[in-house]
Amino acid sequence: MKLASLKHGRDGRLVVVSRDLKHYVAVPDIAPTMQAALDDWAHIEPQLRKVSELLNSGHEGRAQAFDPAQCAAPLPRAYQWVDGSAYLNHVELVRKARNAEMPPSFYTDPLMYQGGSDDMLGARDPISILDEAWGTDLEAEVAVITDDVPKGTSAEDAVRHVRLVMLVNDVSLRNLIPNELAKGFGFVLSKPASAFSPVAVTLDELEGHWQDNRLHLPLRVWLNGEWFGEPNAGEEMTFSHADLIAHLARTRKLGAGSIVGSGTISNKDRARGSCCLAEVRMIETIEQGAPKTPFLKAGDTVKIDMWDGAGKSIFGAIEQTVVLGQ
Amino acid sequence: MKLASLKHGRDGRLVVVSRDLKHYVAVPDIAPTMQAALDDWAHIEPQLRKVSELLNSGHEGRAQAFDPAQCAAPLPRAYQWVDGSAYLNHVELVRKARNAEMPPSFYTDPLMYQGGSDDMLGARDPISILDEAWGTDLEAEVAVITDDVPKGTSAEDAVRHVRLVMLVNDVSLRNLIPNELAKGFGFVLSKPASAFSPVAVTLDELEGHWQDNRLHLPLRVWLNGEWFGEPNAGEEMTFSHADLIAHLARTRKLGAGSIVGSGTISNKDRARGSCCLAEVRMIETIEQGAPKTPFLKAGDTVKIDMWDGAGKSIFGAIEQTVVLGQ
Repeated sequence: MKLASLKHGRDGRLVVVSRDLKHYVAVPDIAPTMQAALDDWAHIEPQLRKVSELLNSGHEGRAQAFDPAQCAAPLPRAYQWVDGSAYLNHVELVRKARNAEMPPSFYTDPLMYQGGSDDMLGARDPISILDEAWGTDLEAEVAVITDDVPKGTSAEDAVRHVRLVMLVNDVSLRNLIPNELAKGFGFVLSKPASAFSPVAVTLDELEGHWQDNRLHLPLRVWLNGEWFGEPNAGEEMTFSHADLIAHLARTRKLGAGSIVGSGTISNKDRARGSCCLAEVRMIETIEQGAPKTPFLKAGDTVKIDMWDGAGKSIFGAIEQTVVLGQ
Repeated sequence: MKLASLKHGRDGRLVVVSRDLKHYVAVPDIAPTMQAALDDWAHIEPQLRKVSELLNSGHEGRAQAFDPAQCAAPLPRAYQWVDGSAYLNHVELVRKARNAEMPPSFYTDPLMYQGGSDDMLGARDPISILDEAWGTDLEAEVAVITDDVPKGTSAEDAVRHVRLVMLVNDVSLRNLIPNELAKGFGFVLSKPASAFSPVAVTLDELEGHWQDNRLHLPLRVWLNGEWFGEPNAGEEMTFSHADLIAHLARTRKLGAGSIVGSGTISNKDRARGSCCLAEVRMIETIEQGAPKTPFLKAGDTVKIDMWDGAGKSIFGAIEQTVVLGQ
């Protein structure tokens, strides 16, 4: 089942989207918003699935043409957004570029940060920044939306709490990060609003590609229309989506609608490209002594997509343009 | 005007509370929840104020007895919770206890962290922990709830975006903090659910005590029924509530219902006691070479309150007991 939130007020309007992303049906009689559906999933999901089946079989008379540009984020505002760094190749490159050792604990204890969740961008919303000197970067990732996760949930049990999967562009202001992290309390200014794929999907839509609580497909990124990367999101994911949820739940429960991100997808094979500019700049630093690829500038475009085995987009593409201003 | 959320479903039920905290009136015809009121404040506030005036003048026939034990947090789940460290005496003591220098930037650039906001505790909810060895601590603070704050809002303009003020117990797991902060991405495990005062109040309820965007009253803390501290929340607040909001808004807008905390209240005058156990332990370390006051254990009770000039509780008290388990 594929779900989206069309732009409407603060929380969007929940719709069921067809598998081929061509049509949608509004479901105000079932649940007004994505959060309302997540709050009462056991009761709401079967009703949404019936609509989805009709829609996919071509028997839903109310179907309308689906336009990703009308989408808000699946959760236009959420009660929680936590992001991991599950691809240690990325973390290793960061460290190597500044000649720092990788702490051994990083291979057993997931690195995660609490992000702001009051403002989530739709897939076609601009990346709006006040100052190009902040060093704006994309970070292409996979994220899951959970239901209520009890405190102390194990990684084995965590997957049962995954309700939906989607793509994220976790926008970062790279030049603000060093000073902010040096203060010791994580990110506040250097992680502005993230953007999400037009639709979020249930695990069954991922067919055999969801294995070991990882999504084994390439995440495809284009910058200004040119191929930028397609690392596989499953193969080198050190901590699975279930591991990340279990880590968070060690000391606290998670509320329905919590969004848990994977961190920037990264593979050791450099022919597969990258999912963020910082990684390209680190490789340039390691190989040539200094970065040469610039961060994002006004007018630059970013596209992030993931295709199924038949080359069809699963989540719809994130397509954003950088703009200067409010 | 004083508002509370009685326990009811995931988001509570908005009620108007009398100034003396003795009565309340439910207002389902005006707004079902606190978040709904904040989402449309310009339209909703005048209607709530009419109820408040009737209630305070004794002319509201629907008034019922107010019981803080029935209160959820004013926002039982919120779209944002960010906490500052605005009292630099506290930060200086932390540093001094481990013989570390205070970075000069700390006096001009507010230290803040993004917290989890999917699970906010009511004023009488237990502090529920899985392991006493985690070193559970209270942190008594003042927090404001904002409306929509545009990106780039100045400190001068920020106070116009303060809708409500309340008290917080920002529970911390002290023994998990060093390892977590050493990872560099802030708090995830070491800051479980925070608890909030029974009521949140508009600025006019603070009368002359709200000055220079600071709340100039002692915050009173008792531990197991014994006096623990009463530092003034205004006098030594290096960064005002407006400064903290403006800092957050430098790179991103804030959504209505964002909660911004002050950090642990702390004064240089040690006769005024403390608002957290860590500070007492730091002073013991500085004066005696080692801490002797233990962190919270199962059965310990914490009370946090603030009185007006006439000795009346403004927000109602936070009163929590530590329990082991889920």
